Amino acid sequence: MENCIFCKIVAGEIPSQKVYEDDTILAFKDIDPKAPVHTIVIPKAHIASLNEVDGDNLKDIAHLISKIPQIAKEQGVDASGYRVVNNIGRDGGQTVAHIHFHILGGRALQWPPG
Amino acid sequence: MENCIFCKIVAGEIPSQKVYEDDTILAFKDIDPKAPVHTIVIPKAHIASLNEVDGDNLKDIAHLISKIPQIAKEQGVDASGYRVVNNIGRDGGQTVAHIHFHILGGRALQWPPG
Repeated sequence: MENCIFCKIVAGEIPSQKVYEDDTILAFKDIDPKAPVHTIVIPKAHIASLNEVDGDNLKDIAHLISKIPQIAKEQGVDASGYRVVNNIGRDGGQTVAHIHFHILGGRALQWPPG
Repeated sequence: MENCIFCKIVAGEIPSQKVYEDDTILAFKDIDPKAPVHTIVIPKAHIASLNEVDGDNLKDIAHLISKIPQIAKEQGVDASGYRVVNNIGRDGGQTVAHIHFHILGGRALQWPPG
């Protein structure tokens, strides 16, 4: 989608530090990390937020979710633990309107989660 | 699973304030809410954490994810926004070893998410 920063990252028009990629999803390091490991995972197809997940694109999101443990393992935090965060809309603090899941690890995450 | 508090909630052995239920998943209010809306969504089948999601149980998790927007809508936070959080293991702050997704809304969630 035009003017979507994550679509531009998928297209290679904006550089990113990729940590995992397949036909459906891309994972890259957050440019403003809030933990020693802070990775963003996105579907390559543009979906604005979880509110727009439906029968057509649920397969991509299910695939994304299923790959998070592998990405966490490759980042060395599967055994020590990690937090997965998805922000939706204003109160969620969503800053890019392309659905993305944060993986945070490498330190003890605190509660509440924001 | 014996001694799992969320399995006991599914079985009705421990009471909960249910907000959504179907054959596969259950959503109920967190007993220690960290936002005006704080709902927990679980699969009825026992899965310890996201690290244990595999080909056999991914269908249940995909169904759970697909229902979150509806649950958020029924809680009145779909338009204002919300945050979905899944904790895995020690550093993630996972306190019950039955996979559960937090939905938090009704206030502006802060960053970092813990």
